Amino acid sequence: MPGNILDIDLESFIKTGLEIIIFLVAYFIASPIGKKIITSTLAKASNRENVSAGRIKTLEKLLINLYSYALFFILIVTIFGIIGLPLGPLLAGAGVLGLAIGFGAQGLVSDIVTGFFILLERQIEVDEFVTVGTYSGIVEEVGLRTTKIRGFDGTLHFVPNRDISGVSNHSRGTMRALVDIGISYDNSVDEAMAVLQEVCDEFRKDERFVEGPDVLGVQGFGASDIVLRVLGRTENMQQFAAEREMRKRIKEKFDEAGIEIPYPHQVNVTKETK
Amino acid sequence: MPGNILDIDLESFIKTGLEIIIFLVAYFIASPIGKKIITSTLAKASNRENVSAGRIKTLEKLLINLYSYALFFILIVTIFGIIGLPLGPLLAGAGVLGLAIGFGAQGLVSDIVTGFFILLERQIEVDEFVTVGTYSGIVEEVGLRTTKIRGFDGTLHFVPNRDISGVSNHSRGTMRALVDIGISYDNSVDEAMAVLQEVCDEFRKDERFVEGPDVLGVQGFGASDIVLRVLGRTENMQQFAAEREMRKRIKEKFDEAGIEIPYPHQVNVTKETK
Amino acid sequence: MPGNILDIDLESFIKTGLEIIIFLVAYFIASPIGKKIITSTLAKASNRENVSAGRIKTLEKLLINLYSYALFFILIVTIFGIIGLPLGPLLAGAGVLGLAIGFGAQGLVSDIVTGFFILLERQIEVDEFVTVGTYSGIVEEVGLRTTKIRGFDGTLHFVPNRDISGVSNHSRGTMRALVDIGISYDNSVDEAMAVLQEVCDEFRKDERFVEGPDVLGVQGFGASDIVLRVLGRTENMQQFAAEREMRKRIKEKFDEAGIEIPYPHQVNVTKETK
Amino acid sequence: MPGNILDIDLESFIKTGLEIIIFLVAYFIASPIGKKIITSTLAKASNRENVSAGRIKTLEKLLINLYSYALFFILIVTIFGIIGLPLGPLLAGAGVLGLAIGFGAQGLVSDIVTGFFILLERQIEVDEFVTVGTYSGIVEEVGLRTTKIRGFDGTLHFVPNRDISGVSNHSRGTMRALVDIGISYDNSVDEAMAVLQEVCDEFRKDERFVEGPDVLGVQGFGASDIVLRVLGRTENMQQFAAEREMRKRIKEKFDEAGIEIPYPHQVNVTKETK
Amino acid sequence: MPGNILDIDLESFIKTGLEIIIFLVAYFIASPIGKKIITSTLAKASNRENVSAGRIKTLEKLLINLYSYALFFILIVTIFGIIGLPLGPLLAGAGVLGLAIGFGAQGLVSDIVTGFFILLERQIEVDEFVTVGTYSGIVEEVGLRTTKIRGFDGTLHFVPNRDISGVSNHSRGTMRALVDIGISYDNSVDEAMAVLQEVCDEFRKDERFVEGPDVLGVQGFGASDIVLRVLGRTENMQQFAAEREMRKRIKEKFDEAGIEIPYPHQVNVTKETK
Amino acid sequence: MPGNILDIDLESFIKTGLEIIIFLVAYFIASPIGKKIITSTLAKASNRENVSAGRIKTLEKLLINLYSYALFFILIVTIFGIIGLPLGPLLAGAGVLGLAIGFGAQGLVSDIVTGFFILLERQIEVDEFVTVGTYSGIVEEVGLRTTKIRGFDGTLHFVPNRDISGVSNHSRGTMRALVDIGISYDNSVDEAMAVLQEVCDEFRKDERFVEGPDVLGVQGFGASDIVLRVLGRTENMQQFAAEREMRKRIKEKFDEAGIEIPYPHQVNVTKETK
Amino acid sequence: MPGNILDIDLESFIKTGLEIIIFLVAYFIASPIGKKIITSTLAKASNRENVSAGRIKTLEKLLINLYSYALFFILIVTIFGIIGLPLGPLLAGAGVLGLAIGFGAQGLVSDIVTGFFILLERQIEVDEFVTVGTYSGIVEEVGLRTTKIRGFDGTLHFVPNRDISGVSNHSRGTMRALVDIGISYDNSVDEAMAVLQEVCDEFRKDERFVEGPDVLGVQGFGASDIVLRVLGRTENMQQFAAEREMRKRIKEKFDEAGIEIPYPHQVNVTKETK
Repeated sequence: MPGNILDIDLESFIKTGLEIIIFLVAYFIASPIGKKIITSTLAKASNRENVSAGRIKTLEKLLINLYSYALFFILIVTIFGIIGLPLGPLLAGAGVLGLAIGFGAQGLVSDIVTGFFILLERQIEVDEFVTVGTYSGIVEEVGLRTTKIRGFDGTLHFVPNRDISGVSNHSRGTMRALVDIGISYDNSVDEAMAVLQEVCDEFRKDERFVEGPDVLGVQGFGASDIVLRVLGRTENMQQFAAEREMRKRIKEKFDEAGIEIPYPHQVNVTKETK
Repeated sequence: MPGNILDIDLESFIKTGLEIIIFLVAYFIASPIGKKIITSTLAKASNRENVSAGRIKTLEKLLINLYSYALFFILIVTIFGIIGLPLGPLLAGAGVLGLAIGFGAQGLVSDIVTGFFILLERQIEVDEFVTVGTYSGIVEEVGLRTTKIRGFDGTLHFVPNRDISGVSNHSRGTMRALVDIGISYDNSVDEAMAVLQEVCDEFRKDERFVEGPDVLGVQGFGASDIVLRVLGRTENMQQFAAEREMRKRIKEKFDEAGIEIPYPHQVNVTKETK
Repeated sequence: MPGNILDIDLESFIKTGLEIIIFLVAYFIASPIGKKIITSTLAKASNRENVSAGRIKTLEKLLINLYSYALFFILIVTIFGIIGLPLGPLLAGAGVLGLAIGFGAQGLVSDIVTGFFILLERQIEVDEFVTVGTYSGIVEEVGLRTTKIRGFDGTLHFVPNRDISGVSNHSRGTMRALVDIGISYDNSVDEAMAVLQEVCDEFRKDERFVEGPDVLGVQGFGASDIVLRVLGRTENMQQFAAEREMRKRIKEKFDEAGIEIPYPHQVNVTKETK
Repeated sequence: MPGNILDIDLESFIKTGLEIIIFLVAYFIASPIGKKIITSTLAKASNRENVSAGRIKTLEKLLINLYSYALFFILIVTIFGIIGLPLGPLLAGAGVLGLAIGFGAQGLVSDIVTGFFILLERQIEVDEFVTVGTYSGIVEEVGLRTTKIRGFDGTLHFVPNRDISGVSNHSRGTMRALVDIGISYDNSVDEAMAVLQEVCDEFRKDERFVEGPDVLGVQGFGASDIVLRVLGRTENMQQFAAEREMRKRIKEKFDEAGIEIPYPHQVNVTKETK
Repeated sequence: MPGNILDIDLESFIKTGLEIIIFLVAYFIASPIGKKIITSTLAKASNRENVSAGRIKTLEKLLINLYSYALFFILIVTIFGIIGLPLGPLLAGAGVLGLAIGFGAQGLVSDIVTGFFILLERQIEVDEFVTVGTYSGIVEEVGLRTTKIRGFDGTLHFVPNRDISGVSNHSRGTMRALVDIGISYDNSVDEAMAVLQEVCDEFRKDERFVEGPDVLGVQGFGASDIVLRVLGRTENMQQFAAEREMRKRIKEKFDEAGIEIPYPHQVNVTKETK
Repeated sequence: MPGNILDIDLESFIKTGLEIIIFLVAYFIASPIGKKIITSTLAKASNRENVSAGRIKTLEKLLINLYSYALFFILIVTIFGIIGLPLGPLLAGAGVLGLAIGFGAQGLVSDIVTGFFILLERQIEVDEFVTVGTYSGIVEEVGLRTTKIRGFDGTLHFVPNRDISGVSNHSRGTMRALVDIGISYDNSVDEAMAVLQEVCDEFRKDERFVEGPDVLGVQGFGASDIVLRVLGRTENMQQFAAEREMRKRIKEKFDEAGIEIPYPHQVNVTKETK
Repeated sequence: MPGNILDIDLESFIKTGLEIIIFLVAYFIASPIGKKIITSTLAKASNRENVSAGRIKTLEKLLINLYSYALFFILIVTIFGIIGLPLGPLLAGAGVLGLAIGFGAQGLVSDIVTGFFILLERQIEVDEFVTVGTYSGIVEEVGLRTTKIRGFDGTLHFVPNRDISGVSNHSRGTMRALVDIGISYDNSVDEAMAVLQEVCDEFRKDERFVEGPDVLGVQGFGASDIVLRVLGRTENMQQFAAEREMRKRIKEKFDEAGIEIPYPHQVNVTKETK
């Protein structure tokens, strides 16, 4: 690196200056192009997948911000590198610290990556009833880092997106209404199924039901009862009320028909002595 | 690196220019060749493994996109490297950040690698009944990142492919129909098995059954009953209905033959004093 | 590196001196600007999100400290690098050690990152009733590294923020008051529901109740009872007392109406011999 | 690197050309030698360990493919390196991406390494009955990445090899047939053991039994019964049928001999008042 | 590196010598300054947070030792680096080994980091009753690496600090005394609550009680009893004795008032035939 | 690197040739020396620790193979490095791939390291009865990568050594024979202990017993019985038979002495109305 | 690097020779000094912490071996580095392999680090009764890599030190003797406590008891009994025998005083019809 200082200055000055100019130009060209690409990609995606306009707006703003910060960061690092100011060692000097930060912050990145795909793939939307991990409830907000779920007991759950390994969304499509009912081993299965079918026929007229309900048959042999199963499909979120009403109606019909829902049974063998 | 600037420019200009041209040529040669290789490999694979045409189309489009982006990325990085613009430090400058991103994004890569093999090995296909981890249901979509499974209660499960460590596919081949039935210790095992065999013989004519059903014998000694096992194989997804009907028929036959399905028993030893 | 020592000294002296001056200037410019940015960003955030003034003060002090230390550390490392004192190898010499430290300290970074977002997103505030992991209680302090929760038995829990994977905050909004009550299979479901509705009507006038309470219907068939469910929403933290009073009132009303809350039932079949 | 361009060209042209030729020669020598080594190693291994011819064929094809691709990859990378085209930075440019891929793909490598050893050590072979992790059934295919197991209920399990931490192979050697039978505390242990030994003697003539069965003695004191154990060894996969028949025979013999398999007992102490 | 050996020696000798001197001076300046900073920081911290003098002494000694060793290590590495003896490769030569050590030793670092914060944040102090993970007992010693806890059965638990993910400290503040008591469904809830309130009033005069005790009301409907809850707050570590005495007193008062603590109930429905 | 090609050739030819010769010499010296060291170290170890000759042979062969391959690998890499053929970049070119392989193969290394120590520390030997993790049985083979264990039901378990985190070896020394026996609350503890001691005295003469058996005393108060404990130590693997015989003998003696092994008891309080 | 070969030889020969000599001298100085430091440090530690002489000897031998090997390894690496033989690339050539080894061997390092601290902090000593993880028993050997524990059933457990996350040492100090005893709800609590206190007073004279035993009071209300607790402290390992004797004595005293240890109770409500 020896030589005449001024020579170096002149020579590298021209080279450096040119490089900086090239990069600034590249920056001012890349910036709007990138934003356009984001906007148009999202627009296309929105057309193709019927995403709501609000969602597109949110995603667009988010991505353009991200892109701007990244581009600006690259510009600064590059110019510092061209001028020759030791940004490299500075960053390297943060090595040990950086390792710790890198590991510590990976959870944050993981949150954002997962959050991005939850938004993009529309796995969760506000006001839907979902189960993620051990949390169940109505979604209040889907963020890049955290999803807020309002449990049915009123609790507000903050779930980091990284912990959302699988989403069970209960607000997409018709839901199953299922009633399992035990009858005595002494009753006639045929008779009980006939009574249940009567109840089912009543509920078939109920407009909450999309499909069925129907009597499936003998689901199993319990210790003290024969378990019969009734199954139908209802409009979303109507299944709980429908099941409750079917249970009430079955109880009434069984009472009328004299069919017993049996208590646990036990055969007592008496052994007198002792 | 000192010398006459113009010399350097000329010398390196020729060299750089040649290198860029070589790479551009290589790019325009490699691009279509690669695509052909993908197409023909998939075509061969499809012939060899009887993959459906739709699947081949999906895979082809997916792989060609991946290939194009990768090649273009390589071209850009290489040309920047030849020109001498400091792309390297720029990427290095992203070191600490990169570590975090690398760790955070590994889940995404893991999703894609797993998803690719699920598609390739045809582990899951749309409309099949599968169990992955804690989720069970009918597959609605198999994506590179996420698999959508419709649970039987109507819930839509979004399962990240990385979490699919083992797939249990219930839609490949004949299924087992199994009924365990308890008889009293006071009944004759031989007689009960004969009655069960009668039921089995009835169902053997049922075309849903591919094999059996047959009475296997004494599966175990319960606390209050001797457990007999009946086993058969049915057409796929017919096992649940078949089992239900067999249970109903066994109950009827047992009632006719006076064979008891016993309640829990207890021997009561009475101790009077106190 | 050969040549006349003095030449080197002079040449590099000028270069080094200039660089140091540039960096010192940059430092003294960057320092107050950064602080201003922090202050104004927080001020904006506080306006936008209605954060309490105390919280803003805390965050501001915390961030400015962090920023000052980081900037000073960078300045020192850079100047050492310019002077040419081998800070690099020194840091590299700490390589093996650094790896261990990096891994060991990642938990600390993870604590701070999580703690920062808990503060920023206001997931937890002092005096709220929360559940984090296996710990439940009233929050006494939210720190960058540790959150202190006072359990209801008086225990003080110190929870490292990294272990707070999901926060359940029970102090945000109205809470559910739910009473499940079993009635005998011999009672009329309609009658019992009427009595329960009477109790509900009494409590509707109670100002602790924001919504309901109402009788939902037949929640399930128990082994010895039919389970009816009563549901309402109360002011925050009033749910426990409300539920207790409703239970007491339901018992009284049931006693008046002669509706039985049944004990477990068993049907005894007697088998004499042995 | 300065000097006359043509000089460099000439000088490096000769050197480069020679190196490329050397490498090509090395490649064309190494390629068939390596394949021979694979073939002969496998042949030796097959002789030494009695591996079936089919398995050897599979392994040979697999290893030769692997070897060919690896050698070709090395040749390409080396020639690019000699020519001086910047393959290095290109690969380095994939750094951050590579980290993510490296982590994401480690599962794939883990699959292949484990799969290779499962094949090599013959832990699993097609048509064997195995348990790996939570999956049990008949092996349908052992691949480098995935093992297919057909569960007894007809389900096809796809198990990634990485998840096969321990293999339990139920098709290697004779199997245990074990029957635990409870007798009443009122019966004579000696008498019951004599009856059991009679049953054992009958089954000893059964050619499915390789060893025993024998009466071991008093295995434990149950709450209501004394547990006796009968143990034998059968031909592979005959154990289930053998156990079932033994259970049936023991029940018959016990009925003849008047030995009771007792129901759960309870001593009832009556306390009158209240 | 060519040239006259003596030239190099002279030139580098001066440079090296100067650098070593600078570093030695820096060392002898930094050493006492650092120690002072530690001492004064701790002194300030102790004033601000009321840390006991003994704790400050321990921390001070510990930190000064750590600081001295670190500074000396840095001095040695730096001087070796200046002299040009290849300490770098030596350390690099330990690369593979170092990786293993780095990973293996991270637990140790994790212990120390956690231990440091447990001391600093005063989460645990000697003679306090704490629960960390699965260990409960009286703290005997809090070290940088290990915490010793004396379990109530006399066992001495050595808990590595890294495993202390959350600390439950039972010696900070008043504790809850809680008694749940079941009464018969046949008793009057009002009457039972009145009797319980009488007991509470007696204990309110007990100076161990800081708050309450009070009768909360009907906590739940058990299978055979109505559960009433009594709650109070006592001086630290008095809760167990207080609860025991309250239980005894409640039993006595209930006996006096003729209120029954019911046994499990069962309704027996007799079915004669068989 | 410019200059006259021939000059370079001559100059570097001599240097390179010398280096290669030195390395070849070093190789041919190091190879037998290393083998000798292995042999003699093992011989010494075998003398010192009484390892069986067969084990020493196995270890010796294994270690010499390992050593030979490692040395040859080093020789090849070094010579390629001296010749200047770019083996380095070739290996570096495998960077991303290498990361994946490194992670994927770590399990393999972990297997071998653990396997080596299991062999060296003689934790497991063929024909011993061990429990590793969830697998129990007789060891059939201890390999560097996998341990084969024959379960008592005949299953052959292949356990990767990495999963052997703790070994429980049941074939090292005398084993405990323990019988817990419940007596009625109505019986005299002293009398029952006297009868048990009689049984113990009988078995003390049994040569399978190394120590005891003895009556320890009242181990606990069960819900319906007082649990007494009898304890002894037997020759290895005799404990199961010994326990079975003791149980039989205790039952006989108790029958003689009229001491009851009680059934579960329940006090029935009758409440008439309803 | 060009020039006259002989020149280089002479020049570097002198430099290299000097460096080697310096290092050899440093080695022969450092070796005994280091050993002395180890010896004297241990001697001091032994004085300060009362470590047994045997332990010191073991630790000393172990540390000196470790130190010698490490120093010799450093010497060899350094001299190779000075001579210029390419040890670096050789080690680098082991890169991919090294990564795998590094990860695979980290468990080994973790074993040694943990083992070292277990020895140093005297967490476990031979013949003590400890619980580590799922293993309980008498310590037979504490090694750097593995700890051998003899379970009470005679099994020898080999526990890798890395798996010893927390040590529960049952041989340090007095142990708790605790007896929980249930009395009937019909008995007088006062009377029962008086009888228990009598038993306690008898045992207070027993020299195995260091403290107590005493009657604590009413520990809880069981379903059918009131649980009273007796607590004392005994000499180490005397607690089991002491508890057994106390149980026996309490039973005798209760029999004398007519206090019942109640069987499970049930209130039977009879419902006739059906």
